[in-house]
Amino acid sequence: MTLGRFLSRDAANFRPSAIRAFAKLINDPNIISFAGGVPNPETFPAERIAEIASRVVRDRRAISLQYGPTRGLPRLVESISRICRDRGVECTPADVIVTTGSQQALDLVAHALLDPGDTVLVELPTYIGGTSSFYARSAEVQGVAQDDGGVVIASLDEVAARTKPKFFYTIPNFQNPSGRLMTQERRAQVLELAEKHDFLVIEDDPYGELVYVEGADTTAMKSRDRSGRVIYLGSFSKVLAPGLRCGWMVASPEIGSKLEIAKQAADLCSGMLDQSIVDEFIAGGELDSQIQKVRAFYRGKRGVMIESLATHFTGRATWTAADGGLFTFVTLHGAIDTAAKVEESVKRGVAYIPGSPFFVDGSGQNTMRLTFAKESDERIREGMRILAGVMLG
Amino acid sequence: MTLGRFLSRDAANFRPSAIRAFAKLINDPNIISFAGGVPNPETFPAERIAEIASRVVRDRRAISLQYGPTRGLPRLVESISRICRDRGVECTPADVIVTTGSQQALDLVAHALLDPGDTVLVELPTYIGGTSSFYARSAEVQGVAQDDGGVVIASLDEVAARTKPKFFYTIPNFQNPSGRLMTQERRAQVLELAEKHDFLVIEDDPYGELVYVEGADTTAMKSRDRSGRVIYLGSFSKVLAPGLRCGWMVASPEIGSKLEIAKQAADLCSGMLDQSIVDEFIAGGELDSQIQKVRAFYRGKRGVMIESLATHFTGRATWTAADGGLFTFVTLHGAIDTAAKVEESVKRGVAYIPGSPFFVDGSGQNTMRLTFAKESDERIREGMRILAGVMLG
Repeated sequence: MTLGRFLSRDAANFRPSAIRAFAKLINDPNIISFAGGVPNPETFPAERIAEIASRVVRDRRAISLQYGPTRGLPRLVESISRICRDRGVECTPADVIVTTGSQQALDLVAHALLDPGDTVLVELPTYIGGTSSFYARSAEVQGVAQDDGGVVIASLDEVAARTKPKFFYTIPNFQNPSGRLMTQERRAQVLELAEKHDFLVIEDDPYGELVYVEGADTTAMKSRDRSGRVIYLGSFSKVLAPGLRCGWMVASPEIGSKLEIAKQAADLCSGMLDQSIVDEFIAGGELDSQIQKVRAFYRGKRGVMIESLATHFTGRATWTAADGGLFTFVTLHGAIDTAAKVEESVKRGVAYIPGSPFFVDGSGQNTMRLTFAKESDERIREGMRILAGVMLG
Repeated sequence: MTLGRFLSRDAANFRPSAIRAFAKLINDPNIISFAGGVPNPETFPAERIAEIASRVVRDRRAISLQYGPTRGLPRLVESISRICRDRGVECTPADVIVTTGSQQALDLVAHALLDPGDTVLVELPTYIGGTSSFYARSAEVQGVAQDDGGVVIASLDEVAARTKPKFFYTIPNFQNPSGRLMTQERRAQVLELAEKHDFLVIEDDPYGELVYVEGADTTAMKSRDRSGRVIYLGSFSKVLAPGLRCGWMVASPEIGSKLEIAKQAADLCSGMLDQSIVDEFIAGGELDSQIQKVRAFYRGKRGVMIESLATHFTGRATWTAADGGLFTFVTLHGAIDTAAKVEESVKRGVAYIPGSPFFVDGSGQNTMRLTFAKESDERIREGMRILAGVMLG
């Protein structure tokens, strides 16, 4: 007897993350890895977190170890609304819902908004965790072109007119996987198209604080939102630690009230020890200096990688500036299939992620995602030299 | 412009928890509360958790603060499979998925199994967090009679024949809200009916370790499962601390592989600090003595409440034995509407939860759920005296 016949329509559309499975194969410490999608543990303020954890457990067990409010620990919710206002987002604590990482926010948004067959627009390329949440609701996912200024407005206009999407999912700040920053002009144009074609915008912003160059304008798209069309997602995963699973979303009341019920059904509340730690860290005034430290940590590595790209790939590829975030994205000239070269590359001691899984239209065979988060400057230089040999022969 | 038109069909079926909203109103420390649904913070091993937390953060930040495997921290997964085997469940670590509390397990099961309009059977009464996950997938929820031996087999047979359910959701050990223990004979009969009518069984077991009397047989229904029809859910919320959000599920591979993808889309992984703490607690051999402490803590309170019921309600009501778990459930003789008496009761200093919200068929007006978890012996006696005055007048 097979039990498969009990599965839902959604389950038939579940897609395991191609890159998450892939990442398991390349955890060998001898391999120089540009493949990871995770922050470097050296950036985690472990000593402070250890101290705060033991304190909030000892002093406030009835909060830090107990069930809590579905929308989140009240003081943390207030801090998050302040953080959002600093990014240009007009909001009050009542608009905020704490989530179990911002992946949960994506899942709840998909649950509350998507019916089977609804269309979602995403960038080409885009974050795989986003599309897996949308596929898991049996949605149709359509790609929209992207260039170094962010989403291509003419493409968004055309695809939206043709497909009547429910929402457009975008990561305007230093996108995973592309590392690109959407211009403020494009952000304004996206919202105009949202009005014109009547769709919502899911703005995912996990990387906005990781800025390495002067003048990068990361002001949230939601700061321009006058009609409540934008749902704004944030996270502490990249500036504090992802193991704490602490993200959030900001939504207008009509949608937010439904998201709250979806969250209640999803896990009652997010981890209260995690929330208590993040809350205390912020309340202690430590977040700004922590962000500065994280920026300083990645800034140099990013510089080494971009410099190595220039050394080895000039004229043979293009790559994104990665003025922030954790990734640069390389497009090789000619018909080089990066997926076909993974095995050889790993054999020669370097891992990367082929770009194709990030393109919902199956394109991008000649692209790859590289993170500069994990390795030392020296290993970045060495790895890039090897990678150039693999790709350009 | 209203944004409601963007909401999904599921969102139209979302139901906020009636009792969770209600609980907010009765957190006044002056009120003697039998209303809570949560463990007593005095049972949380805070000192040990504080020590372990600071240790795993300091020594293993690359695990405890980083993203982790979707199925859970490997050593914790192994420990859970051992715990399940101790409860009679044949399983290997490969069958286990760690979840963000067992509420998440309910939500993932609902996602992977339910299509809109599918029927789910639940006990009358049942846990509201279960039904909210099922309603949130636009399922039809049908009630099955329960008595002091657990689900009434003739009722399950009749309702299953009539409604062709996808699964039966049951809490055989010291159910929330009823406190009842299903007999082993009934468990066997449930599985026979699952074969006969071809449905699955979701066995939710958060209270099985909280046993207060000799001879209570809490062996999991899944121990009798020969065809993989039972998905077994467990949790550390009641024996350690719910704020750590650490539960699990055990499913056969065909369904488990889909549940894993659903979880990946839902939150990538559960909190890694939480998992690291629970893992170390178990690996240190501390779980058994902790369970003994928790049993000892509640055993006396349970005795006081049952004794007070006998003193004040004999001949005017019946109540469940509560040989384990956190609740007894009282059925008043005659047409007494417990919901209508909440306000008066709170005014007189005692809170409880009216039983009706736990009945999906809208019955149970003359019932109420009482927890003995929160108050001292003295306040339990005092509160029960007042409650008798309110109810029996």
